[in-house]
Amino acid sequence: MTNPTACLLIIGNEVLSGRTQDANLRYIATGLGKIGIRLREVRVIPDEREVIVATVNTVRAQYDHVFTTGGIGPTHDDITSECIAEAFGLPWEAHPEAWARMEAHYARQTPPGDFNKARQRMATMPRGATLIDNVISIAPGFTIGNVHVLAGVPRVCQAMFDALAPSLTGGPPIVSQTVHAHGLMEGRIAEGLAGIQNQYPLLDIGSYPYYRPGGGGVAVVAKGTDPDEVAAAARDVSVFMRAVGGMPVQGEPE
Amino acid sequence: MTNPTACLLIIGNEVLSGRTQDANLRYIATGLGKIGIRLREVRVIPDEREVIVATVNTVRAQYDHVFTTGGIGPTHDDITSECIAEAFGLPWEAHPEAWARMEAHYARQTPPGDFNKARQRMATMPRGATLIDNVISIAPGFTIGNVHVLAGVPRVCQAMFDALAPSLTGGPPIVSQTVHAHGLMEGRIAEGLAGIQNQYPLLDIGSYPYYRPGGGGVAVVAKGTDPDEVAAAARDVSVFMRAVGGMPVQGEPE
Repeated sequence: MTNPTACLLIIGNEVLSGRTQDANLRYIATGLGKIGIRLREVRVIPDEREVIVATVNTVRAQYDHVFTTGGIGPTHDDITSECIAEAFGLPWEAHPEAWARMEAHYARQTPPGDFNKARQRMATMPRGATLIDNVISIAPGFTIGNVHVLAGVPRVCQAMFDALAPSLTGGPPIVSQTVHAHGLMEGRIAEGLAGIQNQYPLLDIGSYPYYRPGGGGVAVVAKGTDPDEVAAAARDVSVFMRAVGGMPVQGEPE
Repeated sequence: MTNPTACLLIIGNEVLSGRTQDANLRYIATGLGKIGIRLREVRVIPDEREVIVATVNTVRAQYDHVFTTGGIGPTHDDITSECIAEAFGLPWEAHPEAWARMEAHYARQTPPGDFNKARQRMATMPRGATLIDNVISIAPGFTIGNVHVLAGVPRVCQAMFDALAPSLTGGPPIVSQTVHAHGLMEGRIAEGLAGIQNQYPLLDIGSYPYYRPGGGGVAVVAKGTDPDEVAAAARDVSVFMRAVGGMPVQGEPE
């Protein structure tokens, strides 16, 4: 059984300018791994109509799922929703259920908030969109086709992802196990590690060096959908590291 | 005068799986802004030959500069360098200067390190590559054509970027000024903000809401290459926010 694939589009000038540190990629990547969907690509693109429309159409044809973050607020630079409609060739119109939720939300406030034109844009969606609940700030995200449109603000994005994830059909969960060896240099283990990778062609064995003022080391990660194979590969890595003089510490399966 | 454009390719399964939080995007984006190069796109892609080669060829035709991070270490999953050679149709061969630096580095260690086959791969580059210095761990990055190949480990990546940046020809620096208004909701200011954006078509005015347990607010950022225009727009945003009952705090130009 193969795992469905996904692409994440982070839409926002603020990430491209370096003003904002993205905090959603890691959350979504980890969440997708747990339900057995492989995140295969991430793109960060600006808040520009032509770029968004073209990119959405490229990646939705290429992957089983596309997740977008950012650009669904009330201001002039929030154009994701209308661009998704354009990408699908669908009318962009009031979504009755989203409209009702937001109208009720502003009426409930004391004093009552103004469900003004800008806020009404957040209840305007491609025709046929399915809502994604937003327990933080009401205004929902939506799914149209294989594209899932989430907010950019991390708390809201993550709440939307949590609301959406149970409805997605994944494959076998992707598990990983890490072996750390402080003081062992990557260049010492590279050849042996390549040998272990060859013995486990279905696994993805990655090597991640680190440098700290107190001295560096390496973390080797074995990853795949068969927990027994992952555990066996992690053991082989530990044995090999010990053989070349390292003191490996093997982590739990994740 | 227009600003040169750039694309950043983050190459690494560890970022796509959520294991590793990227820490280079923001550093490179900010650094490029200072020298007037616009980061227009970021892609995160896996350590896979076909994907790397195809993506490099797509983006190097599209942008003035391409920066890659990750995949230039000694292990089997470090394939960026040979993929760049393949993308350019160049031989991948020992780089004499890189080779000499690394050989000397390992000879200097006590006891002398082994400049083994795996480490020799780090001195192997597309023919004609120009080295990018690495003051942290010696093994250099390189530039070939408009593609700049940097390490993935943040300290090393950032040191390489700092070594490279002074040699890049940019445009006028991109400056920004932020106006914060705690307690003001985005939906209240959206319409007025669109009006201000229309008055400054050369600037990029972005609105970024935040939600915190103690209550939310909004940060509005004016950005462009003309510092006087940026300051004027920030003043207009402050005046407008005060008019709708907010208490804006205007930041310094950055």
